Amino acid sequence: MPPPSSATAGQVIKCKAAVAWEAGKPLVIEEIEVAPPQKMEVRLRILFTSLCHTDVYFWEAKAQDSVFPRIFGHEAAGIVESVGEGVTELVPGDHVLPVFTGECGECAHCKSEESNMCTLLRINTERGVMINDGKSRFSINGKPIYHFIGTSTFSEYTVVHVGCLAKINPLAPLDKVCVLSCGISTGLGAMLNVAKPKKGSSVAIFGLGAVGLGAAEGARLAGASRIIGIDLNPSRFEEAKKFGVTEFVNPKDYTKPIQEVIAEMTDGGVDRSVECTGNINAMISAFECVHDGWGVAVLVGVPHKDSEFKTHPVNFLNERTLKGTFFGNYKPRTDLPGVVEMYMNKELEVEKFITHEVPFAEINKAFELMLKGEGLRCIIKME
Amino acid sequence: MPPPSSATAGQVIKCKAAVAWEAGKPLVIEEIEVAPPQKMEVRLRILFTSLCHTDVYFWEAKAQDSVFPRIFGHEAAGIVESVGEGVTELVPGDHVLPVFTGECGECAHCKSEESNMCTLLRINTERGVMINDGKSRFSINGKPIYHFIGTSTFSEYTVVHVGCLAKINPLAPLDKVCVLSCGISTGLGAMLNVAKPKKGSSVAIFGLGAVGLGAAEGARLAGASRIIGIDLNPSRFEEAKKFGVTEFVNPKDYTKPIQEVIAEMTDGGVDRSVECTGNINAMISAFECVHDGWGVAVLVGVPHKDSEFKTHPVNFLNERTLKGTFFGNYKPRTDLPGVVEMYMNKELEVEKFITHEVPFAEINKAFELMLKGEGLRCIIKME
Repeated sequence: MPPPSSATAGQVIKCKAAVAWEAGKPLVIEEIEVAPPQKMEVRLRILFTSLCHTDVYFWEAKAQDSVFPRIFGHEAAGIVESVGEGVTELVPGDHVLPVFTGECGECAHCKSEESNMCTLLRINTERGVMINDGKSRFSINGKPIYHFIGTSTFSEYTVVHVGCLAKINPLAPLDKVCVLSCGISTGLGAMLNVAKPKKGSSVAIFGLGAVGLGAAEGARLAGASRIIGIDLNPSRFEEAKKFGVTEFVNPKDYTKPIQEVIAEMTDGGVDRSVECTGNINAMISAFECVHDGWGVAVLVGVPHKDSEFKTHPVNFLNERTLKGTFFGNYKPRTDLPGVVEMYMNKELEVEKFITHEVPFAEINKAFELMLKGEGLRCIIKME
Repeated sequence: MPPPSSATAGQVIKCKAAVAWEAGKPLVIEEIEVAPPQKMEVRLRILFTSLCHTDVYFWEAKAQDSVFPRIFGHEAAGIVESVGEGVTELVPGDHVLPVFTGECGECAHCKSEESNMCTLLRINTERGVMINDGKSRFSINGKPIYHFIGTSTFSEYTVVHVGCLAKINPLAPLDKVCVLSCGISTGLGAMLNVAKPKKGSSVAIFGLGAVGLGAAEGARLAGASRIIGIDLNPSRFEEAKKFGVTEFVNPKDYTKPIQEVIAEMTDGGVDRSVECTGNINAMISAFECVHDGWGVAVLVGVPHKDSEFKTHPVNFLNERTLKGTFFGNYKPRTDLPGVVEMYMNKELEVEKFITHEVPFAEINKAFELMLKGEGLRCIIKME
């Protein structure tokens, strides 16, 4: 493997990558060629990556088309190896988090204080190529291997649009902060940036995976006094205590709608709720369990394409708010360095999300753990 | 009629009131007795009242139970005649706006900065009596005539809970500011307090009656650059121009969903929308016509009890917000005096909402105008 310097700039790099040749089949570590970065692109060396459910979802490709052969992976941390034409804000050696969605800085969304849904670089799960020339930078013996959501971090080297790279504090340990580039920031931002619970308030969190526990971490940081976790899997409850979750509700334990159970527990409803499962019934419950007058519910989980949100409009008229968020409303380049600083300042506790670690050669073990629902985040060490 | 002083304090006052003896039948001006105010109650002389659609709705009593015989009326302005035990913040002679919902100052909603849905004094359309003793203060020959939403302003004198009275600037002309005690403030507050459009933004308003035009007035005050009015009645469009509405859309002119028409007009959607009709399809359109990333839709109109709000949850996840409001999120006692000041400072233009005026004896004319959909507000002069 070439050294992490710009000695390799402009050249094709040969390195190892975990290639998904077809849907649902174990990844295969292959030697691939990584072409140099083009206009507004950056080539980086990935040091640590972690597995997020979105990788597994598109690898399984049960409900959604996917492009194969493909290099998955999007939660990661790396170091810039070389930059393409027009890239002025990153230089070789910079520490970065690649992000599945971007920030071009020029579109109406990037110019809006409220949005992070960049028109140019918004997540695109179907595209397997780079925007600049509509081609892949990965190949094996000249045959293209496709990209995944602009990141493809299951490779020792990858090429990413500069708008999808957050430059972070070089002192931040990459084996920890790699998990901040997707799920945990999504939950954290949903709570801190969108739900915004006040100190002493009550919060309900639907789904206690990494995203939901990211939201719990946000509620803890915001000073919520009651953090109610809702999950169908009671084994999640023990883990969730470490994240400040104070009470647990398993919908399987009740015959009545869970929003009624929560309203009874909280004298009319919680102040804030965050939905992290994507299940349509959980979304409706998350909305209907917030208190009238001031309750705010935030949707994070991605729903089935045919699902329909239904409620009586009086639930809105009684001064409830329903919002959705994408990547916790964080603008990747502008805001993610600050999330890393929250960790460096010992406010945000990242270590407790990391439950497993495997060498790159054993990346399929990380998939097995996630499919079994074991643990939260498995770090894949590239070296 | 006794003079507006406390010379009548503690005594039964005989005066004229417009009594609704049964659903849908013209009101009859009768001489009634008005008992003195009890604990936390205030008796006031009404000088001007206006007709709001909610009066007509409960007078018609087509879809909703109503209590008869009853004295309707809730948009009004008056002067305190006497106060009951425990009332310390109002004295005879104070100018007040009675409000259909209240502010006790003690409950969780009153203590919340975000809510105005007072637990004690929240609107109750079924109750025809005072809270203190469960009885009416109105009678004819000893037989009770019932109250309406705590105000019953179609009477020369009425009794109202102190928590439902906003003390206003005594210099404010009561024949103008009477219209600020319900519909116009509801629309204005929905825009200024809840939708909160930024200067230069685009706004859609569904329904161009007094509430919708109150919202338009709010959009004008906030500096919106495009105010798009949506109504099925094109005759509303001419009137609406006075309120700063810049563009008009009649859903009858299109075959495609009106949210798609608005999205095409505005490069993806408006920044804010406010729904003032209560029609469930308009509610869905109002939500789906806001821009992803930052759009906020606010529901104001009261829906049919069996209606269901339906949308694809991805419309939320793409960072849209849906909120409902009640009385424009104004706390009656705390905030309404400030709305009157907006008029006194010549920011808020109230005169253009007042299209008709009738003497009290001709109150049924006001009902006829509203049923015909003519004009916006008809002032009923009590003297």
